[in-house]
Amino acid sequence: MPSPIALALHGGAGNLARYAGTGRLELAEEMLNNLVRTLHQGLIGGSSALDVATLAVMAMEDSGLFHAGKGSSPNSKGYVELDASIMNGRERTAGSIAAATNMKNPIKAARYVMEQTQQVLIVGPEADLLTRASGSEIVAPDYFVPCDEVGVALPSMGTVGAVVLDLSGDVVAATSTGGTLRKRAGRVGDAPIIGAGTYAVNNVGGVSCTGVGEYFLRTSAASRVIARMDLLGESPGAASGSILSEITEMGGSGGMIVIDHRGTVAMPYSTQGMYRASIDARGTIVVGCL
Amino acid sequence: MPSPIALALHGGAGNLARYAGTGRLELAEEMLNNLVRTLHQGLIGGSSALDVATLAVMAMEDSGLFHAGKGSSPNSKGYVELDASIMNGRERTAGSIAAATNMKNPIKAARYVMEQTQQVLIVGPEADLLTRASGSEIVAPDYFVPCDEVGVALPSMGTVGAVVLDLSGDVVAATSTGGTLRKRAGRVGDAPIIGAGTYAVNNVGGVSCTGVGEYFLRTSAASRVIARMDLLGESPGAASGSILSEITEMGGSGGMIVIDHRGTVAMPYSTQGMYRASIDARGTIVVGCL
Repeated sequence: MPSPIALALHGGAGNLARYAGTGRLELAEEMLNNLVRTLHQGLIGGSSALDVATLAVMAMEDSGLFHAGKGSSPNSKGYVELDASIMNGRERTAGSIAAATNMKNPIKAARYVMEQTQQVLIVGPEADLLTRASGSEIVAPDYFVPCDEVGVALPSMGTVGAVVLDLSGDVVAATSTGGTLRKRAGRVGDAPIIGAGTYAVNNVGGVSCTGVGEYFLRTSAASRVIARMDLLGESPGAASGSILSEITEMGGSGGMIVIDHRGTVAMPYSTQGMYRASIDARGTIVVGCL
Repeated sequence: MPSPIALALHGGAGNLARYAGTGRLELAEEMLNNLVRTLHQGLIGGSSALDVATLAVMAMEDSGLFHAGKGSSPNSKGYVELDASIMNGRERTAGSIAAATNMKNPIKAARYVMEQTQQVLIVGPEADLLTRASGSEIVAPDYFVPCDEVGVALPSMGTVGAVVLDLSGDVVAATSTGGTLRKRAGRVGDAPIIGAGTYAVNNVGGVSCTGVGEYFLRTSAASRVIARMDLLGESPGAASGSILSEITEMGGSGGMIVIDHRGTVAMPYSTQGMYRASIDARGTIVVGCL
């Protein structure tokens, strides 16, 4: 008997209200609306969670609409640093890259680390050396166009992510970021950290996070959401709400997308908005940003 | 009323049986025996868990007996890469550095990140730039003398770590590594990752891990041990045994040291030995390697 299917996407949590009236929110919503429907058709047709999650993140990386891939922002020293991670819940295999600079699609490099190396996390120039082998294009620094050039004083906290449950019951979570605008060079947040920004376990669920990464590292957010679902039997909404409350109490903010093995979706956030789209096991479509 | 006090140290898990008859195990045991007793006196005298954990890891880094600090091994490209992390359970603050090359005491740089920056994790050359400010000496590549030059074919999986519970009830966990001998350049394991190699939460406990880091990343080992103690009320022994069993089933190996808020200690491992020493809340002293 086939598993229920579901997928959820996020394009980052943050103060999105500042974009009201610029047309930007509508553009992102339209992109996510089309993307989630197309990918859902793929899932129905038997595409794997691994391929759908990879394609989802690649599409968001390439769109230039979010703080990942093309839309990444320069750090304090003026260059872009890219982080990404992917985890397959079937065997809990995982791959990540951090502080990379030359890849069009960081998520492809992360998947390459997962599938083609003995490692889980590769950082810095050594990650850049994997770009060609991973199948990602190599890009020059001028490829990146910060998606928030609409000059704003507020820090942007963008990240993109996908969680997918396929017909085989495999759960995959994937996350990619170009970092916070003017972030400290060398700083790595939760996005490439298995257990913090990304986690997936078959028969339990998957999580991808976005927000002020330091708080998601300190709370080991993604794996603790899964631990609560696993050990306490909590729903995606209850488990993610609990961890987001902890983060709020610590002074942090952000959001996450969560799917359990039944195809239930939760997409909570504590910020003034989170780009998001999902189709749950019942076929219910949600697309929104504020 | 003062909290019970306890501390646990590890100098890495691995195939230590290969060193039998070389005098090396005895040397390490004597060092750890002296260290754990000295630090325990400090705790009785009111030293903070933060200071005791830092001093413990510094002493092991400086000893040249373990795969951290002075005893670090060159990677596949012939140079040492250093990773370390520290977490204070009081406010769950944390700091880490990874893929650094020039510091005598990586744990001091990790503590600097925790206490003096807005970040949690800094990697690569940017971590090296923090060395002087962190109070660590800057060292040249020839400072490092691989502790396993006793030529052996088996991969070494050294890491050092400390978990400390002080009179105030603060729990601190700290971990430092010079990586696996001939590890792939740029590879980062669990040691500098909050939630994988290191985790601490006051009123629950603290954990520091050692072993094949990829498995500890994939299982989000440290934070999941704490999650089991917190959510299920499991003892340090039961919680750590459960996660180590998962790692064994996945094909990995290693060990960890765990202390709960009552000062109960567990130091399980699935390898042919783990350098370890502890004094629990009852004053029971354990020192061993095989």
